[in-house]
Amino acid sequence: MKTKQTNQPFVDLAETLIPHLYEEKVFPTSLIDIVKDTDAFQGWRTVRTDSIDELANRVLSKGDSVTLDFGVHQVGYLTLSINNVHSNADAPLRLKLIFGEMPCEIGEDFDDYEGWLSRSWLQDETINIDVLPGTVTLPRRYTFRYLKIIVLATSQRYSVSFPEIYCKTVTSGDVSQVKPLPDGISNELKVMDRIGIKTLQDCMHTVFEDGPKRDRRLWIGDLRLQALVNYETFNSNDLVKRCLYLFGGMLLEDGQVGACLYEKPAPFVDDIYLYDYSLFFVATLYDYYEATKDRITLNELWPIAVEQLRIGLKRLDERGIVTDDDTWYCFLDWHDELNKQAGAQAVLIYCLKRGLALAEKLGEGEAHAFISSAIQQATDAAMTFLWDQDQGYFTSGPSSQISWASQIWMVLAEVMDAEQNGMLLDRLFDRPPAIAMSTPYLYHHLIEALLLSGRKEKALSEMRAYWGEMIKDGADTFWELYNPSDKKLSPYGSNLINSYCHAWSCTPTYFIRKYFVNENS
Amino acid sequence: MKTKQTNQPFVDLAETLIPHLYEEKVFPTSLIDIVKDTDAFQGWRTVRTDSIDELANRVLSKGDSVTLDFGVHQVGYLTLSINNVHSNADAPLRLKLIFGEMPCEIGEDFDDYEGWLSRSWLQDETINIDVLPGTVTLPRRYTFRYLKIIVLATSQRYSVSFPEIYCKTVTSGDVSQVKPLPDGISNELKVMDRIGIKTLQDCMHTVFEDGPKRDRRLWIGDLRLQALVNYETFNSNDLVKRCLYLFGGMLLEDGQVGACLYEKPAPFVDDIYLYDYSLFFVATLYDYYEATKDRITLNELWPIAVEQLRIGLKRLDERGIVTDDDTWYCFLDWHDELNKQAGAQAVLIYCLKRGLALAEKLGEGEAHAFISSAIQQATDAAMTFLWDQDQGYFTSGPSSQISWASQIWMVLAEVMDAEQNGMLLDRLFDRPPAIAMSTPYLYHHLIEALLLSGRKEKALSEMRAYWGEMIKDGADTFWELYNPSDKKLSPYGSNLINSYCHAWSCTPTYFIRKYFVNENS
Repeated sequence: MKTKQTNQPFVDLAETLIPHLYEEKVFPTSLIDIVKDTDAFQGWRTVRTDSIDELANRVLSKGDSVTLDFGVHQVGYLTLSINNVHSNADAPLRLKLIFGEMPCEIGEDFDDYEGWLSRSWLQDETINIDVLPGTVTLPRRYTFRYLKIIVLATSQRYSVSFPEIYCKTVTSGDVSQVKPLPDGISNELKVMDRIGIKTLQDCMHTVFEDGPKRDRRLWIGDLRLQALVNYETFNSNDLVKRCLYLFGGMLLEDGQVGACLYEKPAPFVDDIYLYDYSLFFVATLYDYYEATKDRITLNELWPIAVEQLRIGLKRLDERGIVTDDDTWYCFLDWHDELNKQAGAQAVLIYCLKRGLALAEKLGEGEAHAFISSAIQQATDAAMTFLWDQDQGYFTSGPSSQISWASQIWMVLAEVMDAEQNGMLLDRLFDRPPAIAMSTPYLYHHLIEALLLSGRKEKALSEMRAYWGEMIKDGADTFWELYNPSDKKLSPYGSNLINSYCHAWSCTPTYFIRKYFVNENS
Repeated sequence: MKTKQTNQPFVDLAETLIPHLYEEKVFPTSLIDIVKDTDAFQGWRTVRTDSIDELANRVLSKGDSVTLDFGVHQVGYLTLSINNVHSNADAPLRLKLIFGEMPCEIGEDFDDYEGWLSRSWLQDETINIDVLPGTVTLPRRYTFRYLKIIVLATSQRYSVSFPEIYCKTVTSGDVSQVKPLPDGISNELKVMDRIGIKTLQDCMHTVFEDGPKRDRRLWIGDLRLQALVNYETFNSNDLVKRCLYLFGGMLLEDGQVGACLYEKPAPFVDDIYLYDYSLFFVATLYDYYEATKDRITLNELWPIAVEQLRIGLKRLDERGIVTDDDTWYCFLDWHDELNKQAGAQAVLIYCLKRGLALAEKLGEGEAHAFISSAIQQATDAAMTFLWDQDQGYFTSGPSSQISWASQIWMVLAEVMDAEQNGMLLDRLFDRPPAIAMSTPYLYHHLIEALLLSGRKEKALSEMRAYWGEMIKDGADTFWELYNPSDKKLSPYGSNLINSYCHAWSCTPTYFIRKYFVNENS
């Protein structure tokens, strides 16, 4: 690994901000079966088989199983009380536990998994219990709504029952901070808001995790959106601050903010560098300051922010355009064919503009001047070399690719004026580019762009068509990936490994609370 | 379950005698492969592949494995230090750990196991580790010499290494109590003695366990033999006392001492009743008193002992012969075809005689008289109805079966005089009965009978032919089951589930120290 730059006082400060975790004991709500159904989402349907009160009476022998529904998505620690039945337990009990956010995780066999992310993310355990009756609390945290328990081995003499099973949930989100929506908000938006809040809540631990099932870590792309929702809901602003100091305290070799970082065994930053993600440090700091007016943090982290802009600008070629290449140098969206050049250019301009505003607030004249000039240069270059007047779209890369991502980000970067932006967005729906949107992350930016351009009705109908469809498909937290026309979509080779509670998908709550409150929607 | 009789003060006293466990950190000694070899014991051979110093350098990726030899048999808790290699661990690590007392447990697939004891006794774990580098201590106790570690999943980015792996062994046996053998003992007997001591040591925990892999509990048949070895070695006499009070404190419905008992979650006696095992409470108490002269314990437990004799006598028919039946009413040996009647009759007489000696010591005149008369009655009946003068053997059951077990126990019961007993034993070797011996437990009684009858040389040659052969076949603790002519013998349908460190097999140490010390053997 490359040498990295650690600013230990920043990391130490971040560690003083580790939040309290709120705990709650949650019990399963019913006994279910998971059955194949080609008409159901991803081919699996849940069928309620019994009241949860029947659980304690159910006697299981070798080969038997029971599947529990915990009602909604949970993140926490599982406890099982287990009784021996018919006889004492004259041999250990061997159980298999399978945890699923979604029915597919219970219905399909993890042993058949062939995706390219590690199978170790799939949540199952084989445990052996030496003493019965007894109570077992598993040491790992799980993320699930469904739990299947299979009795692999008892002995010829005894069977088992489960008088009590519960999950001790954990989150650093304080729900008492979340204000109820005012009257006049439609039930549809209330549901969407609630699910967004639950999504964020289940991702809030000692950092803002991207997904509590997978990857369970802090990505700056997710952080930026989580922070926006947080300011409208949980007000865990010290958690945003902690995350900013962690990123600021552990830079990559050449001073870039890393794309993601880990907390354990001790905080460290991953090697992954992404052009857009490093720049988002500036945008996240800007949003944080707007929400908190925390001048001390702004002062301390400003040099790192401005350095990200300088690093971003180094990638501009002699024309003033972001140098393109074939690697995963910039994220924007999960899309194999998406060319990143125009989007990267737009993210650069977007973040330069947030940097400019911060420089102004700080009275940093020199920085203000250089950023102003960079914005002008990058904007002019975008209009000169990427804008295709005939087609009315921005193009990207050597084959002049036209994508949703490029247009959306150019709107957010406000490269053109509001009217032109609005027309560009209208054009997207009239003549949709072949390179479509893939993730809720990019959908977020579409909605943001529509709202920025005064397309509030369109924004709402797009929210309905996307997150609303997820809800119809059974989401009780919003998903990492969703394509209404390809419901098993996964960039990882298997929908089993997708995260079904994912930070970057929680922003309907932000939109609703920021743009749709106090109006009759 | 039937109601049982609990004498809580006895159980409470037993609980005050829970011994201290001695711990030791034991490291593996070499890296090995387990390979198929039809000439090797049970078809599996170990091959040393590398020095243990190489372990820390070995880098394992998904699908890789490493097998460790801990040098000798261990009972304890496993700790693994694990490093990520090449990159940080961006996904959990999933490992399979397979523990084996014997090479067969590593070589064969537990998933193919079809024995009738629970598969849960086979020691394997699948564990998921969320944080690397890290140190993991597994919560369960394992019994093993060999450990295979299979890397089931890492991620595409990282591999793992194991800088340190060790077992923290536990035993309540204090090795400093064990006196070295005097000079003049052959090396062969020294080795046999050492292995017997190690066998007992590995079975000594908070009770005398029958086998630390399986069943991990207190059986009175094993206890009696363990206590005999203990008096010659560890002198953990309070542990014998604890076990006697546990049995005496928790009786079966009709006042019988149970065959086995459990310590957790709270002490309780199993439903299993065995005719011989209940009677052995008397013999074990007798041996304990002989070793300790602990009159208080004798006084307290005497009523339970004498009750076992009364219960045993109730099974005599009008002829004075133990009523036979087809159930597992009496143990004697693991042998499907063995008829138990004559052996049970002999065990009854053997235990009556120990009871008589105790009654005499206690001045219990009434008991003395009834026991004397019972001995006479049972002995006369045995000679009248079971002794076959023509064949020179005791017969058993409706088909007048002749077995080793019946003769051995009749000798130990001293139904005939010493000279006749000696001739009976000689006859066994000249004209061996078809119903042979199966377990070390019965072999113990053969050796004891030979020594009682002055056949010291024969006893020694039989010890060599049996436990000596186990040693040649690789035992570093003595086994539950061993048949030199059928090395995969198991009464449970699979030799994988046999216990390879088993209490009832540890008595060569007792014989050597009691009968062969201070002589040139």
